[in-house]
Amino acid sequence: VAHEQGILDRIRSKAGASRMALGIGDDCAIFRPRGKGEELVFTTDMLIEAVHFRRATHSAGQVGHQALARGLSDIAAMGADPRFCLLSVAFPKWADYRWIERFFDGFLKLARESGTELAGGDLARSDKFMCDVVVCGAVPTGKSLRRDGARAGDFIYVTGRLGGAALGLETKRGAAWKRHLRAEPRLALGRFLRTRASAAMDLSDGLSLDLHRLCLASGLRADIEEPPLFGGASLHHGLHGGEDYELLFTARPTKRFPASFAGVAITRIGQMRRGRHGEVRLAGEPIPIKGYDHFAR
Amino acid sequence: VAHEQGILDRIRSKAGASRMALGIGDDCAIFRPRGKGEELVFTTDMLIEAVHFRRATHSAGQVGHQALARGLSDIAAMGADPRFCLLSVAFPKWADYRWIERFFDGFLKLARESGTELAGGDLARSDKFMCDVVVCGAVPTGKSLRRDGARAGDFIYVTGRLGGAALGLETKRGAAWKRHLRAEPRLALGRFLRTRASAAMDLSDGLSLDLHRLCLASGLRADIEEPPLFGGASLHHGLHGGEDYELLFTARPTKRFPASFAGVAITRIGQMRRGRHGEVRLAGEPIPIKGYDHFAR
Repeated sequence: VAHEQGILDRIRSKAGASRMALGIGDDCAIFRPRGKGEELVFTTDMLIEAVHFRRATHSAGQVGHQALARGLSDIAAMGADPRFCLLSVAFPKWADYRWIERFFDGFLKLARESGTELAGGDLARSDKFMCDVVVCGAVPTGKSLRRDGARAGDFIYVTGRLGGAALGLETKRGAAWKRHLRAEPRLALGRFLRTRASAAMDLSDGLSLDLHRLCLASGLRADIEEPPLFGGASLHHGLHGGEDYELLFTARPTKRFPASFAGVAITRIGQMRRGRHGEVRLAGEPIPIKGYDHFAR
Repeated sequence: VAHEQGILDRIRSKAGASRMALGIGDDCAIFRPRGKGEELVFTTDMLIEAVHFRRATHSAGQVGHQALARGLSDIAAMGADPRFCLLSVAFPKWADYRWIERFFDGFLKLARESGTELAGGDLARSDKFMCDVVVCGAVPTGKSLRRDGARAGDFIYVTGRLGGAALGLETKRGAAWKRHLRAEPRLALGRFLRTRASAAMDLSDGLSLDLHRLCLASGLRADIEEPPLFGGASLHHGLHGGEDYELLFTARPTKRFPASFAGVAITRIGQMRRGRHGEVRLAGEPIPIKGYDHFAR
């Protein structure tokens, strides 16, 4: 019988030793900042059955991995080191003890690999599975990679190859489907960029919409060429497809980057320009800003 | 048309000026700790339609208030000052622009009153309304009120009168129903207790279950008398009813407390004792540990 206390005890034993001043089990988790030398960054991401994933196509372990991976991708995009996370999760009746166990296995495996302690959370029942994950990261004060730091003349780069997740969502096959099911947060790359990039964000809603947002935040427009595409993906997938969780960043033209870092390609795709705020031009022509909008009708 | 960017812009304008290093709109919110002199406490609470509230009986403003109040109650129970919060929320189709607006009005009113900045969040669609709120509070390092600080001989106290929320849930009438609909986080009282209490927690799942947890955390048992009851509430409501969001705390017998603080009664109900860990005795007899368990079948 999966009683609440039993589930909590099981999570606690799986989560391992705590580096928090106080971990799971009190009204709050307690975190002791190291001092004024570092600032803390926070991100929160929901994962909802039938909205962000389907029970029929996603295993419990994949759901657990993805729930944490999306927040870690935001942490990577700030150039931060993950410190701890909080997990609120509501399980439906169909999720038996085994499914719940595997969900936590997927979640905690990525937590361990990325050095992110599970410090607390909330547990409930609902009709559909849903969870919300908050990740806290740390970065030397003033060194976070924000969206508003790009200057005119900065080069624009992306990591990896784009459009794989969108292609996978369409075909449900092969490497692209695996790409869709399993985001790989670019944490090592984000840390590498911390002292090199002028602005950064992760590609969660598609290059056109995300670059548009970076341009708006920095008060500029962008000129780009065709981005590197995932095998089999179309230009449309690469420009407008979401959930690639690669990094988009800008840097002064004097900065040099290797062709790849930690096994992930780094490709220059264009340059930031003065002009109409938010405009993105591909080969000289303004492109429509598309991307996922939960509230579009 | 309630597009995602439109909703975000609206929230940002309503949320007011930010004291964060970086607020709503980037991959992460950035918080600069004041130094090693304070530690940060974190709590997370979900509010799900048909689980924690019903659309037919709860107004949008009440849902917004309650979503934040539950986390603030945990912050109060740690003796902390709220600093900022993160809100993840999924709106169903039935929630029109007006409902969404009123939800945020209720949420942000309590945020302003309690000095809690809305620093970021996530927005999605789902079949049922659901939200998850993380609140971060700050407290001088080492001064948090934990559950595990009680010693044998400490007196046990509760704030306010118990059982009102449980009575209200049954009758849906009068002052008790208002109590159920609207939690009042005991923030001023929590701060007052910071230097006076040995252990504290908030009463969210009922006195019997919550006191049992405090006893377990402190490795003790408890002897209590009948707690102060909300008008019309039975002893059963007062012992086992949840969602009162009053504070339960312990203090050395030498500490003196006023009969009320900030308009809220403080009542001594018993004493911590050595003995069977977690046992709670009322007038000398062990009482059954009841309370809400989402996973009981």
